[in-house]
Amino acid sequence: MTSSWLNGRPCDGLPVHDRGLAYGDGLFETIRVAGGQARLLDRHLQRLSNGCRRLAIPMDTDDLRNELTRFFQVLGQGVAKLIITRGTGQRGYALPEPCQPQRLLLGSPLPAYPPQNALSGIRLFPCETRLAEQPRLAGIKHLNRLEQVLARAEWRDPVYAEGLMRDMSGRVVEGVFSNLFMVVDGELRTASLVRCGVAGVMRGEIMVRASQHGLAVVEGDISYVELLQADEVFLCNSLYGIWPVTGLAERVWPVGPLTRKLQAVVADLLSDS
Amino acid sequence: MTSSWLNGRPCDGLPVHDRGLAYGDGLFETIRVAGGQARLLDRHLQRLSNGCRRLAIPMDTDDLRNELTRFFQVLGQGVAKLIITRGTGQRGYALPEPCQPQRLLLGSPLPAYPPQNALSGIRLFPCETRLAEQPRLAGIKHLNRLEQVLARAEWRDPVYAEGLMRDMSGRVVEGVFSNLFMVVDGELRTASLVRCGVAGVMRGEIMVRASQHGLAVVEGDISYVELLQADEVFLCNSLYGIWPVTGLAERVWPVGPLTRKLQAVVADLLSDS
Repeated sequence: MTSSWLNGRPCDGLPVHDRGLAYGDGLFETIRVAGGQARLLDRHLQRLSNGCRRLAIPMDTDDLRNELTRFFQVLGQGVAKLIITRGTGQRGYALPEPCQPQRLLLGSPLPAYPPQNALSGIRLFPCETRLAEQPRLAGIKHLNRLEQVLARAEWRDPVYAEGLMRDMSGRVVEGVFSNLFMVVDGELRTASLVRCGVAGVMRGEIMVRASQHGLAVVEGDISYVELLQADEVFLCNSLYGIWPVTGLAERVWPVGPLTRKLQAVVADLLSDS
Repeated sequence: MTSSWLNGRPCDGLPVHDRGLAYGDGLFETIRVAGGQARLLDRHLQRLSNGCRRLAIPMDTDDLRNELTRFFQVLGQGVAKLIITRGTGQRGYALPEPCQPQRLLLGSPLPAYPPQNALSGIRLFPCETRLAEQPRLAGIKHLNRLEQVLARAEWRDPVYAEGLMRDMSGRVVEGVFSNLFMVVDGELRTASLVRCGVAGVMRGEIMVRASQHGLAVVEGDISYVELLQADEVFLCNSLYGIWPVTGLAERVWPVGPLTRKLQAVVADLLSDS
């Protein structure tokens, strides 16, 4: 279950001069695997491909897909974390020529989240650490994640299952490892990710499926006050699906009907087979 | 010359689950070594220690100093790159407990910069990539360096030896791998690094030595227009010392007298013995 492959072969370590370590010069995906197959693989590869294009990291998606298929079969069930780095290079920030990107695949069991999170909802910790606004890196899942590390270190009380992250202007963006939706007057709203944040694959899937079920979905700026006044709030990611938010600061929500409906709409993505 | 040590022992690779790779969860220093000894070691260790404190990475400076001393002796001459990561942990952003930081030491030759850079000055490329404003990470030399990678990728013409980086509000901050000073009416000015930027050890040393030589030194905000109107401009880092800036966009400067004076003031830090 804890196999590690570097460029398709079992490995223990990454070369010490890799730019993934030196600069966080790369991207990653954490993919849910069940029955030897990946969930939402096309969305993961699409985001990765977009990230590679924006960071100018060359990538052959077809080769990668073959390697992933083999890895998923070996893993069977769990989480496949894929890291793509720009590889090693001469000293300094200039892009190496030629560039030989490295593909690292790490298998692990599914995280053991309490089932109550999805059933009864979770409390959200209001993080003080803000997301810096950097349009050139917004949306992609790159390896520069110190803001998430700092935010997650703000609380240890397990009563909080996730933390809320806002940007430097105070806008609501996402969770530390989740995206966020709110329901206002029957409409589904999620933060625009043009300045910061990660465009989660489950977020993308929920937006499409919600539309297919006749729900209006709006991407835009969300203030903290708007969030507190929302009818329903929930978090999502590709590993756990959807968690209703039932508490944030002084605000308490019941688990809302649209949240329950959307949990049912994505349930197939979380099955074990 | 290209030796690599992990926690004091020769190594080829870093464990694949290290958070330095996963999140850029760590810090680094690039130290000039000559005659088996480091230049500005106290400043490097002070910045590193400050970074560790701000990221909550435990570090024993005394142990590290002993290991470094041995490494510098083996290296003799060149650049010692020290990377401190938070080490491996369970999946997810939460800080691992216990935390076992990793110390990676990489030796390399001194970069072969053209001697003309210091003698005749350099042209500065005005990068479009902006530095995001993140006070919690400002000043320290952490492993989240994608902005520098993107900025350095903006030009390939070797007529530009460095690039100018501004913040999201357009303020002048630093070079891609250097700090920046300007001279205005006999006064030395450098950007405040409370929002973004790296507090270089050569920058710190120049500020102290300039003061000792009777020069007024001011840290504050610098606009692009102020930079273009400056009497002198120069860059610095701990590997190359001081490079006069003689060109930026349409502006041309001669190598200024205070720049020349300061080059002499720090010359001992660049000698080979």
